[in-house]
Amino acid sequence: MNKIKKVNASILIIGNEILSGRTQDTNTNTLAKWLNLNGVKVEEVRVIPDSEKLIIETLNFLRKQYDYVFTTGGIGPTHDDITAESVSKAFKLKYKIHKEAFKILENYYKPGEFNEGRQKMVWMPENANLILNPTSGAPGFNVENVFCLPGVPSILKSMLGGIKNSIVGGKPILSHTINLKTVESEIAKSLSEVQENNQEVEIGSYPFFRAGKLGVSIVIRSESQSQIDTCNTQILQFVNEKKIVIVEH
Amino acid sequence: MNKIKKVNASILIIGNEILSGRTQDTNTNTLAKWLNLNGVKVEEVRVIPDSEKLIIETLNFLRKQYDYVFTTGGIGPTHDDITAESVSKAFKLKYKIHKEAFKILENYYKPGEFNEGRQKMVWMPENANLILNPTSGAPGFNVENVFCLPGVPSILKSMLGGIKNSIVGGKPILSHTINLKTVESEIAKSLSEVQENNQEVEIGSYPFFRAGKLGVSIVIRSESQSQIDTCNTQILQFVNEKKIVIVEH
Repeated sequence: MNKIKKVNASILIIGNEILSGRTQDTNTNTLAKWLNLNGVKVEEVRVIPDSEKLIIETLNFLRKQYDYVFTTGGIGPTHDDITAESVSKAFKLKYKIHKEAFKILENYYKPGEFNEGRQKMVWMPENANLILNPTSGAPGFNVENVFCLPGVPSILKSMLGGIKNSIVGGKPILSHTINLKTVESEIAKSLSEVQENNQEVEIGSYPFFRAGKLGVSIVIRSESQSQIDTCNTQILQFVNEKKIVIVEH
Repeated sequence: MNKIKKVNASILIIGNEILSGRTQDTNTNTLAKWLNLNGVKVEEVRVIPDSEKLIIETLNFLRKQYDYVFTTGGIGPTHDDITAESVSKAFKLKYKIHKEAFKILENYYKPGEFNEGRQKMVWMPENANLILNPTSGAPGFNVENVFCLPGVPSILKSMLGGIKNSIVGGKPILSHTINLKTVESEIAKSLSEVQENNQEVEIGSYPFFRAGKLGVSIVIRSESQSQIDTCNTQILQFVNEKKIVIVEH
């Protein structure tokens, strides 16, 4: 709806463990929040299995569709870690030993510990840019607009600082939340009118039930603080008229 | 890899709040585990915004690609709840008042409380099958192989029992986990050989770092217990040879 050019991204979660329910994905949430702060809007997330064919197909679609693509998972040393080779094939680049990564891990491990398994982690698409890993040594990598990060949440988080300068975002997306002691149906019509009158902002309505409280969070999102303020005033007007209580969340 | 016909599904999470990072999705995990128990393998998850065009396009792709599609979110009473209307358009069905759903909510609410906002929740694709909601009244719905559930996790969970009989799964997918006090690189080569020798099973390797423990979980998944057992024996053999300690997780 907004006419300002937005910078957008998609997230590609690679991993059978997410699809089987064994592991609860939290990397989407980490990346979405971090990208948001950097002015990048996540438009789509896909979770796919550890399948070379699917990684190549999906990545080749997403990298053309969005300004940035972030992948998580599949860059470790075991047989099910096939992201680096698949990304090489997607870009039609050679899959080979990355000399700088090799040096990093050679120094990281004690003499004799940089074994065959670990050496797999320095195979990458030719000329990939490294994403340094302050937690556990093995770097991620970046090719064009695609950033490949590990699946372990704490390691992924520790690597985001290293790519901040590679991401050129738009204006940060601002948000304002109003928590009301009401139910959605009570405000649905009035809120819909506010959205009609403010088509440049995104208004979301989310019921909450927790800690004995029942209510609705209204979230206003826009790149413009003044548009958020206008919207906020209009919402508070009907909230006031309906004598709805505003609550702390 | 497995030659037995698998029953598969995709999950379509509809909601700006997941993409913005405001909300941590947990419905994927809930659905994946539940489907797994019912012999249905989740092959893909997509998270998309509250956009009619995207919902229609994505749903029309997924419902042809997979045996089942489960959507979550966007079936409440507010302006951003557009799933029911979008699903109607995807199936080229009329979007209209569902008489049975109307009766349910008319009885559920106190006289006078079944207001215009709430009445929006009984608009559905023509002749949809209802998915009853024991928690908060408003039903979900099913059209052909598509099941539309709400976004609030506790309500979604409470509705799964009601669709169990509508899902025809394959053999349940069994799994066995071995937790080792080691690092992935130490076992990568041997584990890869076991996977080579047992192409019908899916072997995943997942490092863990928590509560002061560092290790690797190996997960073996298959519809066949005997294949899992064979694989397990081969893994325990190299674990034993390498003198790796097996730990409780």
